[in-house]
Amino acid sequence: MPQNVFPIDQTKSMFEQETPGHNRWHPEIPEIATVRPGDDFRMDCREWTDGQIKNSDDANDVRDVDLMRCHVLSGPVYVEGAEPGDVLVVDILDLGPHLPGTAPDELAGASWGYTGIFDKTNGGGFLTDHYPDAHKAIWDFKGIFATSRHVPGVRFAGLSHPGLIGCAPSADLLAEWNRRERALIQTDPDRVPALALPPNPENALLGTLPQSEFDRVAAEACRTVPPREHGGNVDIKNLSRGTRIYFPVYVEGAKLSLGDLHFSQGDGEITFCGAIEMGGFIDLGVDLIKGGVAKYAMTNPIFKPGPVEPRYSEFLMFEGISVEEDGTNRYMDATVAYRRACLNAIEYLKTLGYTGEQAYLLLGAAPVEGRIGGIVDIPNCCATVGIPTEIFDFDVYPSDADLVTRDLGRQASTTG
Amino acid sequence: MPQNVFPIDQTKSMFEQETPGHNRWHPEIPEIATVRPGDDFRMDCREWTDGQIKNSDDANDVRDVDLMRCHVLSGPVYVEGAEPGDVLVVDILDLGPHLPGTAPDELAGASWGYTGIFDKTNGGGFLTDHYPDAHKAIWDFKGIFATSRHVPGVRFAGLSHPGLIGCAPSADLLAEWNRRERALIQTDPDRVPALALPPNPENALLGTLPQSEFDRVAAEACRTVPPREHGGNVDIKNLSRGTRIYFPVYVEGAKLSLGDLHFSQGDGEITFCGAIEMGGFIDLGVDLIKGGVAKYAMTNPIFKPGPVEPRYSEFLMFEGISVEEDGTNRYMDATVAYRRACLNAIEYLKTLGYTGEQAYLLLGAAPVEGRIGGIVDIPNCCATVGIPTEIFDFDVYPSDADLVTRDLGRQASTTG
Amino acid sequence: MPQNVFPIDQTKSMFEQETPGHNRWHPEIPEIATVRPGDDFRMDCREWTDGQIKNSDDANDVRDVDLMRCHVLSGPVYVEGAEPGDVLVVDILDLGPHLPGTAPDELAGASWGYTGIFDKTNGGGFLTDHYPDAHKAIWDFKGIFATSRHVPGVRFAGLSHPGLIGCAPSADLLAEWNRRERALIQTDPDRVPALALPPNPENALLGTLPQSEFDRVAAEACRTVPPREHGGNVDIKNLSRGTRIYFPVYVEGAKLSLGDLHFSQGDGEITFCGAIEMGGFIDLGVDLIKGGVAKYAMTNPIFKPGPVEPRYSEFLMFEGISVEEDGTNRYMDATVAYRRACLNAIEYLKTLGYTGEQAYLLLGAAPVEGRIGGIVDIPNCCATVGIPTEIFDFDVYPSDADLVTRDLGRQASTTG
Amino acid sequence: MPQNVFPIDQTKSMFEQETPGHNRWHPEIPEIATVRPGDDFRMDCREWTDGQIKNSDDANDVRDVDLMRCHVLSGPVYVEGAEPGDVLVVDILDLGPHLPGTAPDELAGASWGYTGIFDKTNGGGFLTDHYPDAHKAIWDFKGIFATSRHVPGVRFAGLSHPGLIGCAPSADLLAEWNRRERALIQTDPDRVPALALPPNPENALLGTLPQSEFDRVAAEACRTVPPREHGGNVDIKNLSRGTRIYFPVYVEGAKLSLGDLHFSQGDGEITFCGAIEMGGFIDLGVDLIKGGVAKYAMTNPIFKPGPVEPRYSEFLMFEGISVEEDGTNRYMDATVAYRRACLNAIEYLKTLGYTGEQAYLLLGAAPVEGRIGGIVDIPNCCATVGIPTEIFDFDVYPSDADLVTRDLGRQASTTG
Repeated sequence: MPQNVFPIDQTKSMFEQETPGHNRWHPEIPEIATVRPGDDFRMDCREWTDGQIKNSDDANDVRDVDLMRCHVLSGPVYVEGAEPGDVLVVDILDLGPHLPGTAPDELAGASWGYTGIFDKTNGGGFLTDHYPDAHKAIWDFKGIFATSRHVPGVRFAGLSHPGLIGCAPSADLLAEWNRRERALIQTDPDRVPALALPPNPENALLGTLPQSEFDRVAAEACRTVPPREHGGNVDIKNLSRGTRIYFPVYVEGAKLSLGDLHFSQGDGEITFCGAIEMGGFIDLGVDLIKGGVAKYAMTNPIFKPGPVEPRYSEFLMFEGISVEEDGTNRYMDATVAYRRACLNAIEYLKTLGYTGEQAYLLLGAAPVEGRIGGIVDIPNCCATVGIPTEIFDFDVYPSDADLVTRDLGRQASTTG
Repeated sequence: MPQNVFPIDQTKSMFEQETPGHNRWHPEIPEIATVRPGDDFRMDCREWTDGQIKNSDDANDVRDVDLMRCHVLSGPVYVEGAEPGDVLVVDILDLGPHLPGTAPDELAGASWGYTGIFDKTNGGGFLTDHYPDAHKAIWDFKGIFATSRHVPGVRFAGLSHPGLIGCAPSADLLAEWNRRERALIQTDPDRVPALALPPNPENALLGTLPQSEFDRVAAEACRTVPPREHGGNVDIKNLSRGTRIYFPVYVEGAKLSLGDLHFSQGDGEITFCGAIEMGGFIDLGVDLIKGGVAKYAMTNPIFKPGPVEPRYSEFLMFEGISVEEDGTNRYMDATVAYRRACLNAIEYLKTLGYTGEQAYLLLGAAPVEGRIGGIVDIPNCCATVGIPTEIFDFDVYPSDADLVTRDLGRQASTTG
Repeated sequence: MPQNVFPIDQTKSMFEQETPGHNRWHPEIPEIATVRPGDDFRMDCREWTDGQIKNSDDANDVRDVDLMRCHVLSGPVYVEGAEPGDVLVVDILDLGPHLPGTAPDELAGASWGYTGIFDKTNGGGFLTDHYPDAHKAIWDFKGIFATSRHVPGVRFAGLSHPGLIGCAPSADLLAEWNRRERALIQTDPDRVPALALPPNPENALLGTLPQSEFDRVAAEACRTVPPREHGGNVDIKNLSRGTRIYFPVYVEGAKLSLGDLHFSQGDGEITFCGAIEMGGFIDLGVDLIKGGVAKYAMTNPIFKPGPVEPRYSEFLMFEGISVEEDGTNRYMDATVAYRRACLNAIEYLKTLGYTGEQAYLLLGAAPVEGRIGGIVDIPNCCATVGIPTEIFDFDVYPSDADLVTRDLGRQASTTG
Repeated sequence: MPQNVFPIDQTKSMFEQETPGHNRWHPEIPEIATVRPGDDFRMDCREWTDGQIKNSDDANDVRDVDLMRCHVLSGPVYVEGAEPGDVLVVDILDLGPHLPGTAPDELAGASWGYTGIFDKTNGGGFLTDHYPDAHKAIWDFKGIFATSRHVPGVRFAGLSHPGLIGCAPSADLLAEWNRRERALIQTDPDRVPALALPPNPENALLGTLPQSEFDRVAAEACRTVPPREHGGNVDIKNLSRGTRIYFPVYVEGAKLSLGDLHFSQGDGEITFCGAIEMGGFIDLGVDLIKGGVAKYAMTNPIFKPGPVEPRYSEFLMFEGISVEEDGTNRYMDATVAYRRACLNAIEYLKTLGYTGEQAYLLLGAAPVEGRIGGIVDIPNCCATVGIPTEIFDFDVYPSDADLVTRDLGRQASTTG
């Protein structure tokens, strides 16, 4: 077993750990451990909201979640010899939910996880204009599989991965992030949901940073929500077991952090709250390519997916084009195209007996493929979303036969 | 062998065929053949530009291509019993380049095809701001594989497919297309490349439509470039051999047309001119699901990919985020994210010895995967492009070893 | 299109061709063409029985087949520079059934093929003690798929390959084959079916060998039935499109021959007559590794399968162990284990509505996987046969539900 | 986490557990727990030799292993409602090596495992005439991967599975096993290695069977080495995570037992001692199909492999035919064909720098594919063994380039 360089007492919040992690990006957050190139090591992870979401049949916790506390990350890990301009090679050797006896049953990751749809006024999501209210599905982990009492009729193998992983930014890079995101916010400062999230000291967690530095650093430290040059919250489902990732290094020691473990996720993590969320463990190996950033002309991370992704071969794929729901034609807009493809998939799943919310939750959780079709055929981009049909326990293909009336229950919703 | 319902004399232009196809969308274009549900049949196809591009070592033909003639399509085929609101089930039983003895050697599809980069002022492309000039790569077909004298060092199995396939729009749907695309053009009417392409009678080919109707129909008929509700030019690489597609039917007889055969293509067809273009043949089977559009709540086509896609298992994947090259942050823009991912891949391939244009051409031609990563993590969308590494005859992974200096030649460019 | 170095007039028997092929192995059979390392070329192929089996609904032709004429092979091809001890690298660039217009409809390979069960007294097969009579299934080729009126309910993508391919033996190797096979025959010379097939001049076809040499060579030339050191009739389903094979070279020019094209086959080709048999074409590329046999310590061919094998992911697998049907325990006998696995699969398929013969034919024709399980656990070997379940158009998994009564017709059998 | 119905104190031998498992098959061995259809549960497993093999650099422990103690199994588990003639449906939900803190470091399964070659006089193996001496390789588990200091240059993802799993035989079935195996032994009673292993009370472990019954039962109870009708020691590598197995039930309660966990294995487990052996845990779900044995005409287990098998796409495959090393031709002997294929693979790997023993160990441990080629082409069977080439960190394909001299160390061998 590799050494655990970041053990967590899962009965306590990340804020209460003896050596806490962090929930903001800043180069000055102190490392929690030091490793050497060639080392393998383990880290424990909290579920990304730090345990705010419960294994229950209502979605009030999702509606009321405190997003200022997110994401609680494990790290940073200092890699000896890493210097700005190097490439940090990270092998994701394994990861999974909480091992037996390491976490209380009520914590996501203790044999269960959740997918949520945020309320439009507290988080939102890809289809928030269509599904503005909070909902939730609880998934039970049965070995490699997930099933849900809130989305019956499906069982799928998890394509587990860290939603968020990357090295600390340099001070310059951090400043650039703040600059450009502030500029974006200024284009529509009152938008709901917000266009971007500026630094906010509320509930900021900065590891073992001395209290004397807190206010200054918290005022500069970037939120963890968006993916950026360093990777970060990329939410790429294929960063799974066995993946090798090449990260640009910006600071001495690289300062690698990660979190937001997902038992499974569909491309896009369209529900935002999101994937199948869990706490757990991750085993990593690290190495260095000196001067690799310039050598390979890198701007963002590069990776080679692992060899044990679920091997589904049959997909039902839905097309979408870059025309808005109201008929407005957008120019080459892959976001609109993918949204329309997802909406098409949801409408289809509704004809099989699911609620729209169940279908939305399923697209966020199952290993669905979101692909770019033509992105040059002016003015319309085409995108596709593909659902592996083997995950259903009934036939989902179109046919001449009459539609079967199925009672597929419903998701957990808000109460009171 | 299924009956060929649309034989083409490949020594002549599509305009000169006894029964010509068409290059615009309009419900009144007469069918060229009638089939019944359950039938299998073959159709011949012209290469999409109708033979304008040559197997040569310059790209002047790409620079000077007449896009008004594109795409020359085979069809429409009338399916007995098909009515608006039905779903037309189409099995792509097989397709391929020109069979021996059926086409002159100088025609794309006669054991060779091409990938082009359009000039910014005549077509453009996904990266036209970075690569504004015309370039070209000729690919030789060696059985299931393609190789290129203009992009040495790679060999890959073709994921062949029709770039364009769909049923004729109804008059109402056609009017809606024209409405919304004209509205888009009006937002920036002088843009180069244009935002969209309005109907244009120049070089319009409307099959066997009586001359008396030509002017009226040509003035309404939509260009074939964009994908739309009916499918059309979706440029989805996975519509390959063995795929079953479910199309909405808008007019009596469905009136299925297709063309733009690709020997292979990367997700996005980012070079626009584009994929590995060829003429050839396609074998189809058709069936009907009566009333299927309402039954399955369909807006766009749905499909199930075929079982013989090239089985590559190792990919090098590049991330991109929705921040413009100049540092402007876009909100959840998957198009920008995918462009940045592609640019990152190109920069990487340049470190291995390719020119930027070669790398761009390769991304358009090889079976690369373009996927949506996180599309909810405000403000940044993440997208990835994955290159199957087994297609290279040298090791392309990042490593500690010194970069090897390779002479990988160069693409065909313009002269004089 | 690569040059066709062995064009066949498919309206005539192989014996009647201007330049005939051959149906025996002997180093003195003259080459029909010469190629150079690096060349690509095409060859036409006759169906292995030279057209004896018809697209009919009885199996009399299978029962009465003249096996002395088999296999009619295309070749030999002389590769310049190839010497004994070299490795001939052969790329199977493509292959398929007869192209349109190249063969009469009544010939296997003209959009159809067949699987037969030989009569026990004329060929036999893997399960001949259980199924001693001749039967047949005709398969229709629909693009990449095969279906059969004699085995309804299934449709599968072909894993097409040459059942037989290899270089000519040297005189010494030929003598060794004759020695050891004669020794085997002597252990039970009257067995039906025979243990092995000695040289037999009846209906021997030796290409363009001068008549003056015929009697001597025909008396020495080995039959083509068994696989041997050179490869030959290995009937490996994975020698499909895109495969690279490394062959030992035994004579000057290598003298490569091939035939017995299969549209599809299950591991073992257990019906013997066998796979889905067809005539057609094959495109090859050749190269040399000088001195490769010693360099790589080769005894038999080595190969790397191609990348476009049908991508089925769900299999129902049946185990068998090395205990005979009568309860006799065999020691580590993988042949018995595989036979029992196949019989178990057949009994299972019978519960779904197939006849035993249909199930047997299906195992011979569909891309089933035959694997070695434990082969060290004394005294029992375990073998498995796996059927891709996606090929059926009904659910074939065991379940609590009542068995459905299906009328699945029956195979073609003998009459009169 | 599912309930652990068979917790093991891994600091003690299976013989010393409070509730011990068993190492013989007999219907009267009492159940260790009772579960109901629909239940999920966990079981702990000892490594199959009960901890006799060490993480060391000599193979004396393999040479001297006491095989009378093997295999130490977990179970039997009684399934409520199961009756003879039913089918027990078993889902392998997950399995793996010892979890952190559950086993001492010196026990196989505590982040390491081993592959051994037995001495010919104490166990033997598939190639024991070629490799008669004991050797060993230690494999380190790095997340999903295994590497070995004794077989450098390879790293592969484990296709983990229980080598042995099945229901208890009825008294009648047990008697039949004893009858037929004794009859086999009688054909050559003095053979080394023995043809089969009769009941032997030495070191027999019969769970919680009352001492009063021990002598009688031990004299009847079958050894666990061979696979039989119930499954048992089938050593099928594809019984991996996510697999669903359908077992015949012979006694009330089914009495399911299992053990012999493998981190990875090649088809055939040709080294016998064998695969990559480990202790660990397994999570199962169970269900019943009443009367399923007759309904589905079952003799042996049937299974559907799981969806997370390592996804290797490139293989180097070696052919073998049923001709003995001394030139004797065997009739349709798949065992000889597979042995020759394995020997061919080993000779090839030796040219790359491995010792024969390293290559033999690698074929036993890595996820190699062992397939039946033609098994009807009299007199020769063809079999293939395929090695996934992506597991090597150097290029292993044949080529024109000079062979590289590599120091790949050597396996652990016997001393003194």
